[in-house]
Amino acid sequence: MSREIVVFGAAGYSGLELLRILVDHPAVRVVAASSSKWCGERIDRRVPRWSTDLVFVDHEDAMRASTSGRIALLATPAEASLELAPELIDRGLRVVDLSGAFRLRDAALYPKWYGFDHPRPDLLQEAHYGLVDLVAPSPEARLVANPGCYATAAILGAAPLVVRGLVRDDVPLVVDGKSGTTGAGRKASEALLHAEVAENMRPYRLSGHQHTPEIEQALSRLAGRTVMVSFTAHLVPMRRGIIASIYAPSSPSASQEACHRAYTQQYEGSRLVRYLGSSTPPETGAIAHTNFVDICSVFDARTGAVSAYSAIDNLVKGAAGQAIENLNLLLGLPKETGLV
Amino acid sequence: MSREIVVFGAAGYSGLELLRILVDHPAVRVVAASSSKWCGERIDRRVPRWSTDLVFVDHEDAMRASTSGRIALLATPAEASLELAPELIDRGLRVVDLSGAFRLRDAALYPKWYGFDHPRPDLLQEAHYGLVDLVAPSPEARLVANPGCYATAAILGAAPLVVRGLVRDDVPLVVDGKSGTTGAGRKASEALLHAEVAENMRPYRLSGHQHTPEIEQALSRLAGRTVMVSFTAHLVPMRRGIIASIYAPSSPSASQEACHRAYTQQYEGSRLVRYLGSSTPPETGAIAHTNFVDICSVFDARTGAVSAYSAIDNLVKGAAGQAIENLNLLLGLPKETGLV
Amino acid sequence: MSREIVVFGAAGYSGLELLRILVDHPAVRVVAASSSKWCGERIDRRVPRWSTDLVFVDHEDAMRASTSGRIALLATPAEASLELAPELIDRGLRVVDLSGAFRLRDAALYPKWYGFDHPRPDLLQEAHYGLVDLVAPSPEARLVANPGCYATAAILGAAPLVVRGLVRDDVPLVVDGKSGTTGAGRKASEALLHAEVAENMRPYRLSGHQHTPEIEQALSRLAGRTVMVSFTAHLVPMRRGIIASIYAPSSPSASQEACHRAYTQQYEGSRLVRYLGSSTPPETGAIAHTNFVDICSVFDARTGAVSAYSAIDNLVKGAAGQAIENLNLLLGLPKETGLV
Amino acid sequence: MSREIVVFGAAGYSGLELLRILVDHPAVRVVAASSSKWCGERIDRRVPRWSTDLVFVDHEDAMRASTSGRIALLATPAEASLELAPELIDRGLRVVDLSGAFRLRDAALYPKWYGFDHPRPDLLQEAHYGLVDLVAPSPEARLVANPGCYATAAILGAAPLVVRGLVRDDVPLVVDGKSGTTGAGRKASEALLHAEVAENMRPYRLSGHQHTPEIEQALSRLAGRTVMVSFTAHLVPMRRGIIASIYAPSSPSASQEACHRAYTQQYEGSRLVRYLGSSTPPETGAIAHTNFVDICSVFDARTGAVSAYSAIDNLVKGAAGQAIENLNLLLGLPKETGLV
Repeated sequence: MSREIVVFGAAGYSGLELLRILVDHPAVRVVAASSSKWCGERIDRRVPRWSTDLVFVDHEDAMRASTSGRIALLATPAEASLELAPELIDRGLRVVDLSGAFRLRDAALYPKWYGFDHPRPDLLQEAHYGLVDLVAPSPEARLVANPGCYATAAILGAAPLVVRGLVRDDVPLVVDGKSGTTGAGRKASEALLHAEVAENMRPYRLSGHQHTPEIEQALSRLAGRTVMVSFTAHLVPMRRGIIASIYAPSSPSASQEACHRAYTQQYEGSRLVRYLGSSTPPETGAIAHTNFVDICSVFDARTGAVSAYSAIDNLVKGAAGQAIENLNLLLGLPKETGLV
Repeated sequence: MSREIVVFGAAGYSGLELLRILVDHPAVRVVAASSSKWCGERIDRRVPRWSTDLVFVDHEDAMRASTSGRIALLATPAEASLELAPELIDRGLRVVDLSGAFRLRDAALYPKWYGFDHPRPDLLQEAHYGLVDLVAPSPEARLVANPGCYATAAILGAAPLVVRGLVRDDVPLVVDGKSGTTGAGRKASEALLHAEVAENMRPYRLSGHQHTPEIEQALSRLAGRTVMVSFTAHLVPMRRGIIASIYAPSSPSASQEACHRAYTQQYEGSRLVRYLGSSTPPETGAIAHTNFVDICSVFDARTGAVSAYSAIDNLVKGAAGQAIENLNLLLGLPKETGLV
Repeated sequence: MSREIVVFGAAGYSGLELLRILVDHPAVRVVAASSSKWCGERIDRRVPRWSTDLVFVDHEDAMRASTSGRIALLATPAEASLELAPELIDRGLRVVDLSGAFRLRDAALYPKWYGFDHPRPDLLQEAHYGLVDLVAPSPEARLVANPGCYATAAILGAAPLVVRGLVRDDVPLVVDGKSGTTGAGRKASEALLHAEVAENMRPYRLSGHQHTPEIEQALSRLAGRTVMVSFTAHLVPMRRGIIASIYAPSSPSASQEACHRAYTQQYEGSRLVRYLGSSTPPETGAIAHTNFVDICSVFDARTGAVSAYSAIDNLVKGAAGQAIENLNLLLGLPKETGLV
Repeated sequence: MSREIVVFGAAGYSGLELLRILVDHPAVRVVAASSSKWCGERIDRRVPRWSTDLVFVDHEDAMRASTSGRIALLATPAEASLELAPELIDRGLRVVDLSGAFRLRDAALYPKWYGFDHPRPDLLQEAHYGLVDLVAPSPEARLVANPGCYATAAILGAAPLVVRGLVRDDVPLVVDGKSGTTGAGRKASEALLHAEVAENMRPYRLSGHQHTPEIEQALSRLAGRTVMVSFTAHLVPMRRGIIASIYAPSSPSASQEACHRAYTQQYEGSRLVRYLGSSTPPETGAIAHTNFVDICSVFDARTGAVSAYSAIDNLVKGAAGQAIENLNLLLGLPKETGLV
């Protein structure tokens, strides 16, 4: 089986993180990495550890390197992935897409949440949603939709409660997401200047963030019921890291013991998802630059509210790291291969 | 009426902010400012604009300056305020206390939330809770409890919804608070080192933050029913600013129009509390170093959830600025005197 | 004498800071503030304290408000100031320009340092360089060139040493400047994104920064000899503040006492320039949001090197604050009027 | 040859970084890691990738694990290293010490720069200064003094100029060092609180930093003449990274070509020290979390000044990473083994 990889969109934050991880991966080899911005520049100028003669190429050269049997990692915007993925699949590659282009099964959701009509509902049906800790893609998958950063944190944090019926099902689940600025990507922007963001904090896309239907889809599928989510994203003046804070009134079956059991059962055997109990809050700094997920969950007997807090590195577990887990599964490798 | 002020605990972040504001106040005069740490040092070394010969004094000298008719501002920890306030009142001063020592009417709450038995339940009955935009203290008050920083943001953000019955009353109101690091005070601490906090983010005091009963007390009083709050605080790597994000399932009477009306009616006539509507998120940078409160509120018809986001500067509106508003009211001055 | 002010370029960081200061100025009135970006928007949305009905206008409307006798403050790029200033002077206004357009007397320097041929060498001769603490403009001046941010810190920090011959004159004076990111302006840029700047630090414009000839011109004029400066700017991950670190081998007449005397004599009588001695390093946080300059100077007997460190707020003393000082002098007011 | 390692002082920033690197090292094994603070706690709580049952032990247990033939890495303060190193050497271990305890050959320098009389001048003579890119320790060394963080950046940045006589030798070399806050260690401190450091910047230890004699010693030895250094350290609001900015008037033999040649010759063959030429400034973000050193050097024909800028990660190349290079050399391994 070929273990040669083509990376599209390698100059964005997620794309660079893919390269940072792949340089140490023992079982795959990057044969091309595309960036329109840095085309022709040596990769090791941007990723010092890379240390090869490989240079960034343009999309056309990356497409030429996309021969049958290889695997393509798309760290491109959804609009670009919509064009690239079908062509790559037609050429006989398998694709892990880091954008939202193939995450929602229901094509009807795209106009509202992504602002475009989806051109390939058939691929939405075929795509595997690769939230590896809860729903691993088949090794035969041709197209894997890598989960969103907020969605990863929210779903992993909420699933044990929702699946086991520990929260009331008649009110929306509240998810308050807080992210560092690499989550907003690398495009020049006045609103994201350091002078605008530092010493500042703000909610954004109030009730309209495109990860909302992704969280609802995954939790609904896992719980076997319709789960509604009230999600708001917040921009925080740091580079990396997400905290998803999850709040719900508890169901009668909830208790601190039941919550504790839910998380330990859900994630036992997982080395990378760590349940910290009810009194050790997660912090993003503890898992920065790693693929770990740290989760804490609290049942408050006084109010009957249950809450959970989940921390990830948005560029690793929330993007490139989980994409490598998906890549490993496609290759029949242990999912943590090459990851920390 | 005397307009001479004594400041206790002037070297903390709230105390310094009091001095920064008072230097420009047209109608009062600081006669003493105490700091054990900087005792003897000129105030203008720490607050450049101060520009007088005034030096920090110790608590004893500040107490000596506390003669009848003056007003004392206490920027001291709750334990210190518990001792200072009664003595100052006995001496004939009026007191604005910035700590939590006199904020809760029910003395029984202190052991759980503050870790001590309250020695003066009588003063808890007498104290005026000075959330000036909703419950102004009487000009005759001898003791004003200045609200907590998170509590100020949460109560001002939630009150219009709660008072008008726009949220369901059978589930706890969710408040997700996010604060900069000056909120944690100036004490040497490993956990609050720059190297620990920068590029990091974490929830803390999960379901146990002492501002919880303060928020519940104020909202319950305003709404005329028992309001339960599920509140979690988060530490964010910035110096100043709080965002309180408030979430609740809506009641049948809610709509975007009803929410809009609730906020505009509540805060019409207020120059410093600004309702931004449903699509302009507040940001802390916009109101840093000011006494403004910026609030946005969203009704999400899809989920039936309503949310509100309120931004303040934790040291100004969340501490020193509101204390000056209370001071002004005690003096019969317009509440914004000397404030921005 | 008219005390009506027109502000051009009010939406940049310096322009907004002008508005923040002018809102409290007791003796002048802003009659128009231009911003192409925010044209039509209320000023108090961006500067909460402004609290009037004034809205940002376009350049044409600001020019229409520019009637004879008024004073124009230009917070525009050098290229725009080159066009605006002559027209405003022709209309009978006096102008304080915050850009570099009129700072260098020698027109021949502009191509190398600013990249354009200067169209009005006559105005360069007429312009007053308004470094108010060392060379105040005449009250009759029609055109004042407000100093650059790095230049202000460097000249104030170095002048006492250079003027009194305490440093060797056969080697260039070293100035290592470090600035927060508001110094780079508000234009959308990838290199200045928070995600690029936070947790990062870099020198820039190595030996080529356009404040170099400005520092040399001022120090040469003050010292009565040609002073060469080796200046490098560094970008530091914070919003506001400059430290200029100045290094030189000492002349035979230098000693710690001579250095101390040089600074105390130079700045005695100045409230806003504070000489801290040789063992209290300045820090930008201590003077943020103020017009103060804090300076420390060290003579190292072991190496014979002398160094000085000067801290300013780049938007206040380094831009808007000093511009208000110049404005006050044009109006015959005490230079600190309306300033902190 | 034993490749078993004992780490002392594993809970500091340098100690943790040692553990982060060693977890991936293919040829050595950590048998004990001491921390008084975290004694008994699993290492993988603090270094998630560690993923073993290893727990932090106290100093006594680490000493018990220090059997002959092993290698000890000391990430302890100088005072502790002074006690530990002799005992470990007596027990037959070899030692790499990350503190300043054994860096200066001349014991007479310790009282002035470190504040103590050195108890073991004999070990100062024996110790190898392990600045691996310029002076590698012997594989037989029993004691290696790992260079200081500022010293590493300064010496690597200045050596090519100084060794080849491209700078004047009659004036002190100026080194302006700027560091992130992890360089100050992990001890609770008011001055290093996030609320004190963020949005702030300051020089410190003016002309008195203890890395000064270390830089002078190394450059003097390399250049074969006495090199005097005027060094000032600055604290910058970021966690990691150092820029050393080096300034000197040039000697007659200097030119841009000569500077260029000096750096390329000095570091040719080195993968980790990258000379970027004269127009690409280094930035700390580009080499964060790596052992790379990026250097730029500029000859300014106008002023005759030459400058160089060198960037390292203070915890990797400036501490733990270089210690691993030294460890590798002691073990006869390629020096980059296990490093990025």
